[in-house]
Amino acid sequence: MSVKKIMVIGFGTVGQGFFEMLRAKGKLSPFSGAKIAEIVDMKIGHIREPGPNVIDEIKGGKRFQQKDVVEAIKESDADIVCEFTWVNFKDAEPAHKHMIAALQNGKDVITTNKGPIALRYGELMAEAAKRGLQVKFKGTVMASTPSFNITRLIPGAEVTGIRGIMNGTTNYILARMAEGMAFSAALKEAQEKGYAEADPTNDIDGYDAAAKAAILSNVFGWGHTMSSISVKGIRDVTPEEAANGTKLLVKVDAKQASVSPEKLQDSDILRHVNGVMNAIEISTDTLGKIYSLGPGAGKSETAQAAMSDLAEILNEN
Amino acid sequence: MSVKKIMVIGFGTVGQGFFEMLRAKGKLSPFSGAKIAEIVDMKIGHIREPGPNVIDEIKGGKRFQQKDVVEAIKESDADIVCEFTWVNFKDAEPAHKHMIAALQNGKDVITTNKGPIALRYGELMAEAAKRGLQVKFKGTVMASTPSFNITRLIPGAEVTGIRGIMNGTTNYILARMAEGMAFSAALKEAQEKGYAEADPTNDIDGYDAAAKAAILSNVFGWGHTMSSISVKGIRDVTPEEAANGTKLLVKVDAKQASVSPEKLQDSDILRHVNGVMNAIEISTDTLGKIYSLGPGAGKSETAQAAMSDLAEILNEN
Repeated sequence: MSVKKIMVIGFGTVGQGFFEMLRAKGKLSPFSGAKIAEIVDMKIGHIREPGPNVIDEIKGGKRFQQKDVVEAIKESDADIVCEFTWVNFKDAEPAHKHMIAALQNGKDVITTNKGPIALRYGELMAEAAKRGLQVKFKGTVMASTPSFNITRLIPGAEVTGIRGIMNGTTNYILARMAEGMAFSAALKEAQEKGYAEADPTNDIDGYDAAAKAAILSNVFGWGHTMSSISVKGIRDVTPEEAANGTKLLVKVDAKQASVSPEKLQDSDILRHVNGVMNAIEISTDTLGKIYSLGPGAGKSETAQAAMSDLAEILNEN
Repeated sequence: MSVKKIMVIGFGTVGQGFFEMLRAKGKLSPFSGAKIAEIVDMKIGHIREPGPNVIDEIKGGKRFQQKDVVEAIKESDADIVCEFTWVNFKDAEPAHKHMIAALQNGKDVITTNKGPIALRYGELMAEAAKRGLQVKFKGTVMASTPSFNITRLIPGAEVTGIRGIMNGTTNYILARMAEGMAFSAALKEAQEKGYAEADPTNDIDGYDAAAKAAILSNVFGWGHTMSSISVKGIRDVTPEEAANGTKLLVKVDAKQASVSPEKLQDSDILRHVNGVMNAIEISTDTLGKIYSLGPGAGKSETAQAAMSDLAEILNEN
């Protein structure tokens, strides 16, 4: 197999984490020497054949020639495009148009961007299927912590439903509130620690968790969409409710999909998932309920998800 | 690909569970129509081309011609041997000799039997490697709940250590003791519910958990053996200690391997794993700690593990 060339779109935290991890681990057998041949970032410009010190150069202020991303994709001879731009839950742009351009130009796609996978899954998968290409998106649900991809380990088992804690920001805030802190103080602390963004609405009001519910529904063919999912955030949760085991719970199965604060029983392991940790409960026909817990965000944790997707693409080609 | 023939050795709970599950799910794509061509059981005899009602026939008292298992393996044209006989932590027999015979006769091996994988891993793997064959054993650690095989989902990540609750019987007893029950009463209840055997020493004294520690050490190349693992069971745990979060903990990494009761902090998710549930914490370099929780035993739960192994063998051939 020839060495596969990768084009990275968006060179922020995840893009840089992926660059560093592929540099450290790319020689391991699952990655077959795949290499990042070019990088396009709307602010930094178009980097061809990035050298090992490119991140230091950028931190030092170096900028490259500006280039329209879709044009760069069309002109690229890369085999795989990694889409790492910002999330947009309104229309999934510009990530969606980057992914479509990549597929239309014969490139497999890896993304950690929830927008296109939550909002425009059918269109992307049809575009990929038509050309025998792949779209991989493990990083969209719980970073590289096993989530929907656990099904690879239990072939033949049918997934009948999912519950989970899939937003670390709100789970952190609820855990602090359970210790007696007011919502506003807990939110401020989460922002100071970098867990919550300046505009925290995607987390606090449940949209980020709803996007994950939509993605899971897409993966398992349950037919729910972002707009059909019932969504309630944590703004009205009291410290007393938090202390009594209320968590922001994602629930999805063939019949319903919702995101809502829910009081969990002490015997429910999800109640004991504190801090920014994420958790998923997967109900199956053959082995009952299994659980996967771990980080749901972070530079290295998300980059590992893209590495997992990359290994799958390389091994399936 | 031609349909692969399977020989099942040992037709007790796991063997029958596997037979039923393959009958229900064998037509799904991961299993490529693989079929059970023969069954050998020391009590029931040698069943060629078992019909769909064979389990009912056996329950009704039907017996087949007695046959030496190793002879049957030598004469068989099966491609894959599933070893489902009883566990033996002294010398791993007779499972070990069945597996060696299968490999020496060109057959891939699937087992849920902890004995050979805990005690004679190197010898089995060398025999398999010499012939380009596979030995799969997911069911030996936490049935089909993801455990060591999670590494398939995080390629490139290095596993640096493992902790876990890997014996459901002792975890059930400790949970009941935490509610105030005496050890002997909790053990009796576990026996009545079928969680503990008439001779409970393998569970209570930690040998079953130690076998799992040895298997994990084998998988990750850490070099510990059953006899080098420090093992302490739960006989001396008091109800007070159980109520304060003491669990029978497996710990393995490159430096040490142990099984011992340990008081866990309230912030440790493993403390909240109650009843017969099993749990594993996997420490990695790229994504920190991840956890998998679920059943560690049971007919369908263990059969699913053999199904997962079967799918892997079929897809890798």
